[in-house]
Amino acid sequence: MRTKLILSFLLLTCFVAFSREKNLEKPKKQDITVDEKGLIKICVMYPFSEGKTFNMEYYETKHMPMVAGFLGANLVKYTIEKGLSSGIPNQALPFMAIGTFYVKSLSEYQAAVAPNRDAIRADFANYTNVTPVILVSEVVK
Amino acid sequence: MRTKLILSFLLLTCFVAFSREKNLEKPKKQDITVDEKGLIKICVMYPFSEGKTFNMEYYETKHMPMVAGFLGANLVKYTIEKGLSSGIPNQALPFMAIGTFYVKSLSEYQAAVAPNRDAIRADFANYTNVTPVILVSEVVK
Repeated sequence: MRTKLILSFLLLTCFVAFSREKNLEKPKKQDITVDEKGLIKICVMYPFSEGKTFNMEYYETKHMPMVAGFLGANLVKYTIEKGLSSGIPNQALPFMAIGTFYVKSLSEYQAAVAPNRDAIRADFANYTNVTPVILVSEVVK
Repeated sequence: MRTKLILSFLLLTCFVAFSREKNLEKPKKQDITVDEKGLIKICVMYPFSEGKTFNMEYYETKHMPMVAGFLGANLVKYTIEKGLSSGIPNQALPFMAIGTFYVKSLSEYQAAVAPNRDAIRADFANYTNVTPVILVSEVVK
């Protein structure tokens, strides 16, 4: 009787363990998939042209963390990319760098940035001599 | 003796199940973190201007899956975003849409696209009347 009880308990434990293992994978996969869809992206794009400069180290270690700090829990993540070339042969590099903020709410982003706009703009001179183009977009896929 | 064998087997099975469950979480979390850093992005950007059109449904359901199909295992993921506005007041929307391929190797991407370039370009007319700007960049963060 006791052996049967132990056996039943162990079988149940195994069943629970395997079920949990199965379920564990699902939410993780969904997290990755729904991660960005529906989010708002603010892409700050620095156009390339002759004589224009961009200090990636300052941008990565000082400017982007400063702006990210203003955004609070509305910021899901931010990314930085370094322009390498145009994808069309014999065309100039379109952008030297792009910094992107992924946020849940555009109005919250605007409210957070407004009181800090002067500080953000004043910092531009520390890493670039170009005025960025800014695109607000929605992640479709 | 038989009961002991069964018990040992079940215990071992449980142990294996729990160990696998534990290990499952680790690589997944790392995947999310290192997901994009160091990857090459090919951003295909469709500039906005008066009279220019873009059919997002065709782009999402036909064009992007077709190009993605050419890229094989080199393609880590692709994203689509819909331009909403300029982030700078009183400036025109810079881009109507951006499609981005995240790949491991630029040369592999170029080799995969080259023999299909005509098919890709011929499909443009099915969803837009604008010529895209293409940026090749490296994910820094």
